[in-house]
Amino acid sequence: MASGQGAVVTAAVLIIGDEILSGRTQDTNLRDIARYLGVHGVDVSEVRIVPDVIEEIAGALNQLRAKYDYVVTTGGIGPTHDDITADAVAAAFGVELYEDPGIIAEMQGKWEVTPARRRMARIPAGGGLVRNPVQGPPGFTIGNVFVLAGVPSIMRGMLQDVGHRLKGGAVTLSRTVRVAGSGEGVIAAPLETVAKAHPTMSLGSYPFFAPGCFGSNLVLRSRDAAELEATVRELIAALKAAGITDVAEVAEEA
Amino acid sequence: MASGQGAVVTAAVLIIGDEILSGRTQDTNLRDIARYLGVHGVDVSEVRIVPDVIEEIAGALNQLRAKYDYVVTTGGIGPTHDDITADAVAAAFGVELYEDPGIIAEMQGKWEVTPARRRMARIPAGGGLVRNPVQGPPGFTIGNVFVLAGVPSIMRGMLQDVGHRLKGGAVTLSRTVRVAGSGEGVIAAPLETVAKAHPTMSLGSYPFFAPGCFGSNLVLRSRDAAELEATVRELIAALKAAGITDVAEVAEEA
Repeated sequence: MASGQGAVVTAAVLIIGDEILSGRTQDTNLRDIARYLGVHGVDVSEVRIVPDVIEEIAGALNQLRAKYDYVVTTGGIGPTHDDITADAVAAAFGVELYEDPGIIAEMQGKWEVTPARRRMARIPAGGGLVRNPVQGPPGFTIGNVFVLAGVPSIMRGMLQDVGHRLKGGAVTLSRTVRVAGSGEGVIAAPLETVAKAHPTMSLGSYPFFAPGCFGSNLVLRSRDAAELEATVRELIAALKAAGITDVAEVAEEA
Repeated sequence: MASGQGAVVTAAVLIIGDEILSGRTQDTNLRDIARYLGVHGVDVSEVRIVPDVIEEIAGALNQLRAKYDYVVTTGGIGPTHDDITADAVAAAFGVELYEDPGIIAEMQGKWEVTPARRRMARIPAGGGLVRNPVQGPPGFTIGNVFVLAGVPSIMRGMLQDVGHRLKGGAVTLSRTVRVAGSGEGVIAAPLETVAKAHPTMSLGSYPFFAPGCFGSNLVLRSRDAAELEATVRELIAALKAAGITDVAEVAEEA
């Protein structure tokens, strides 16, 4: 597991829930998590989406936490019978769940503590809490795993208590060069020439098609700001030398 | 691998691309694929998102195609150097890529056949084509794997040539009961009672929070229409018996 400035620090995201797999609900948490971790110098390198089945969650979690520096999970930490993420995480780590008295005490000030709500105070032994500034009980963390809610607004709130615990590496910087009116079949050759000259950089081509407009966003990524700057200039020059005229750097989306 | 009416037929979706992992692009293909396969009696049971790295793609593909009846991949079949899905699929199956003369012939009628565009005619030996009614060259299929484009409009077009090749099982039906004004902490007990009485059914609770309104969508899923109907009625009765009054079945989202 790499860490420290300059190193590549990686994470996996494990999204838990039948409702994402069925296509009923559109996941948006990955995008928020990936951008948040990116700013903290952690690259999301793999994502898995698994059903509400303890063995599937625990199996995926054990593979991912061994392979990547961090794992962030979302979903399955509510009070209903299908919320089994705590059980699955405990099974993956081979530890018991305990009822956190602080969570129970905080609940008692707000709600009737039903057996269902009591489920949400169960934390794997050896774990710590992740603050929930939105509503409801906290998430938790154990080892290199952060266990967050699935509801996007709550997930984003919990994420704010994750960043300061990460040992991020160098932040991956990105720049986008937009080509309009030329397809990938024309862009490919100059793009490949530049990519081959910079083997440590990531250069991707993402075509777009809209009525009356087509082209491709060429995204350059690097942890080295100087090389990134030089490569952007080199790419624009190579595209223009290949006769592609409608080329411009564009701002990254927010 | 199960198949035939009544059996459970499963699929995995393998999404290929750094731009999804970085949070730059919001994936929407999963939702379209899951709904399309669902109508054809195939349940998406796992999703992985991997970077543009041949070994990662091939490794994930070999795990998924062994575990599930079908695998659908999206992304990485364009003409640029970062489009390496065909190479990865060939590596996973241990076969060579060949250049399909039909694809080249079709290209020649439309574009200059550059070396980059020629890359898109490479098909793993033993594979067949997946028609592309939108634009550009076809996708392909090999074994139980369908390899589709990443651009959503093109992916959806290619998907129309997938359904008739699937041996689907019984279609999973779903119904939604919406509870407003009661949180999951209150809903959980009656929901669990009903869930335990119907162990072969899937009952999930998906809370929502909006200004002035909160509650949960309770989604019931089954391959048995009669049991599904009976369980919807039983769940509504159980919620009302628990003092929860704002309960109604709502139409599934389109």
